[in-house]
Amino acid sequence: MTTLPEARALDAADPLRALRDRFALPEGVIYLDGNSLGALPRATIERQRDAVARQWGEDLIRSWNANDWIGAPARIGARIAPLIGAVPHEVIATDSTSVNLFKLIVAATRLVPERPEILTEPGNFPTDLYTADGASGVLPGSRLQTEPAERIIDAIGPETALVALTHVHYKTGARHDMAAITAAAHAAGALMLWDLSHSAGAIPVDLNGCGADLAVGCGYKYLNGGPGAPAFLFVAERLQERVRSPLSGWMGHADPFAFRDDYEPAPGIARFLCGTPPVLSLLALESGIELFGEVDMEELAAKSVALFDLFAQRVAERCPELALVTPRDPALRGSHISFTHRDGWPIMQALIARGVIGDFRAPDILRFGLTPLYLGFEDVWRATEILGDIIDSGEWRETRFQERLLVT
Amino acid sequence: MTTLPEARALDAADPLRALRDRFALPEGVIYLDGNSLGALPRATIERQRDAVARQWGEDLIRSWNANDWIGAPARIGARIAPLIGAVPHEVIATDSTSVNLFKLIVAATRLVPERPEILTEPGNFPTDLYTADGASGVLPGSRLQTEPAERIIDAIGPETALVALTHVHYKTGARHDMAAITAAAHAAGALMLWDLSHSAGAIPVDLNGCGADLAVGCGYKYLNGGPGAPAFLFVAERLQERVRSPLSGWMGHADPFAFRDDYEPAPGIARFLCGTPPVLSLLALESGIELFGEVDMEELAAKSVALFDLFAQRVAERCPELALVTPRDPALRGSHISFTHRDGWPIMQALIARGVIGDFRAPDILRFGLTPLYLGFEDVWRATEILGDIIDSGEWRETRFQERLLVT
Repeated sequence: MTTLPEARALDAADPLRALRDRFALPEGVIYLDGNSLGALPRATIERQRDAVARQWGEDLIRSWNANDWIGAPARIGARIAPLIGAVPHEVIATDSTSVNLFKLIVAATRLVPERPEILTEPGNFPTDLYTADGASGVLPGSRLQTEPAERIIDAIGPETALVALTHVHYKTGARHDMAAITAAAHAAGALMLWDLSHSAGAIPVDLNGCGADLAVGCGYKYLNGGPGAPAFLFVAERLQERVRSPLSGWMGHADPFAFRDDYEPAPGIARFLCGTPPVLSLLALESGIELFGEVDMEELAAKSVALFDLFAQRVAERCPELALVTPRDPALRGSHISFTHRDGWPIMQALIARGVIGDFRAPDILRFGLTPLYLGFEDVWRATEILGDIIDSGEWRETRFQERLLVT
Repeated sequence: MTTLPEARALDAADPLRALRDRFALPEGVIYLDGNSLGALPRATIERQRDAVARQWGEDLIRSWNANDWIGAPARIGARIAPLIGAVPHEVIATDSTSVNLFKLIVAATRLVPERPEILTEPGNFPTDLYTADGASGVLPGSRLQTEPAERIIDAIGPETALVALTHVHYKTGARHDMAAITAAAHAAGALMLWDLSHSAGAIPVDLNGCGADLAVGCGYKYLNGGPGAPAFLFVAERLQERVRSPLSGWMGHADPFAFRDDYEPAPGIARFLCGTPPVLSLLALESGIELFGEVDMEELAAKSVALFDLFAQRVAERCPELALVTPRDPALRGSHISFTHRDGWPIMQALIARGVIGDFRAPDILRFGLTPLYLGFEDVWRATEILGDIIDSGEWRETRFQERLLVT
């Protein structure tokens, strides 16, 4: 089993180690919930102060031009693009993942109105299921069909308009084969939408390499954009002039400041903007994204794998009662690691009480996000050591369940 | 014509005068664009720093509980409620005005599927027209009908599902008779939706007194919530259990953290939440709203009237070339004042160059927001004096048009 000095040696050899200091991590906490809310980049504190006190307070309405607030959704989208295998003008930062799912599901399904079926998997992240259901409700004749992951490819058929899946599962961490499923969808004449909420910024994603049509994702997890940060959406260039958002707000108009009565969608990805964006939250997201400008994504992916392997190895030896549910093969998973234990809930509460913040997913999953930008090998060593102590001592049986974490 | 000493005497007698110091107004600027982006409350600077550095940075994911991020949309909605004549559980802060319009137009129109028509007026704020058009596009058989303001009541008929109007017009400042139009809609069996973007926080609004069914509004104008602040929506209590949002995101679920596959709308107004809210922007909005807790709305309304009267009187005498387009009768208008001038655009640019920030609306409208929370009578005196100087001297003919303001 890896020792503490060995874990420290891994940190010393980590080419991404310096990035840790770019985050304001609190003392006494090992934060393994970056897959739910990423940590605060230090630069964001001053950036946000500037956004409030100078840009809003002093420049006031002029900031839409002077500080290019108006350009923020496209500018931030362009910075996200290289993390997900897109070109800059295929991505825009706007609204929430849920709202963006609705826009894209409706827009895509309208392209093939003769096909009634939106296909996804049961146990997908709830908002993906709920918004697909809501979208289906405004598409005459449409229906939402769910098939287990292992049957998805076989279930795609001539009735399928859209396959909509989350790339990395929020509970188990299992990853779909983006290339294979996208190819199967296209072979059947269907469109493919990926939710990258648990992928973007954590593992390599190659939307264009896989020929994906549409994607959405979250800004507040691995992108470190802050609580409820605006989400992003991707539309492949080849589709952009063919799709129209049902949410035809003024910011997606071809000429919003002409104040015309008739809607005309903007050229390109900007047609998926809707209302006026929440600028303060958007600028915090930009600050988070910018850190990726310094990161080699291959190094990031390699570190994610190494953190996972260390976590899995130490839990296997130290806490064999915990059953790993995340696939070991890096190609089959994301950057979080999940275990089941019948008493997962009180165990997680005991861990949190000791400063190790992961989260629990009903009915029995302990989930730990391994965010390679700021997590170290010593963190993993200590977290698994504390986990082992808690299991050994049975102290979790004494836990008072005061806090229920609300996380995704 | 009112003199500077007289204007100063009005400020000295203003019961709301102390509130001005609660805003961080920049030196050398007279800000008459609070109807587009409200000024920065001083308290927001520290509140936002705390939200970033402590709530996000230190408490991290625990803040959803520890700092009640999860309760923010309902908490802020409850604070907006008294400003618009609603009860606390009828209002929630979420998404943008455009997204909220889409939710409510679809939800309302579905209640009366046998009625095909959504009725509004031409020249309504563009996003209201665009989203009504988009909503109509997902409602089978539905159509968007526009009728000029003076013909709206007569146009409401047995085919009308929903009348959707902006209470105060964004260009002219003209106000609809909320009680009369709502009554006419109900008499014809239609539902009534009001956009309060240019009303809330500026003039008295009594949704329940008028029997209104639905409303939306903006957080970044008179509510001083910051750029692109989340919007609010209102659903009358009697309708809440009957309407369903087409944007069925997880935050509007009856039990979002049960992570169930099937959507079940939350009881009450919370069903109109959709995705995870942009917390930083939401907390800035809360800070803006809180200032209204100290304000007597009758005093606010009276000051708005007095500011308008001073502005109108001085322009009439000092700059007779400007034609007032806003109704003089306080019952017929909001809290901004608009004039036409053939050369409105360069005149506004010259004003802005002199530190008087209003805005221009094509083709020929000069628009000035009179925000009674922080605007003083001396401000109005000085602004109109500078406007007069510019007109007299013709210096606007020399203006270089470098800056186009992007405002609503």
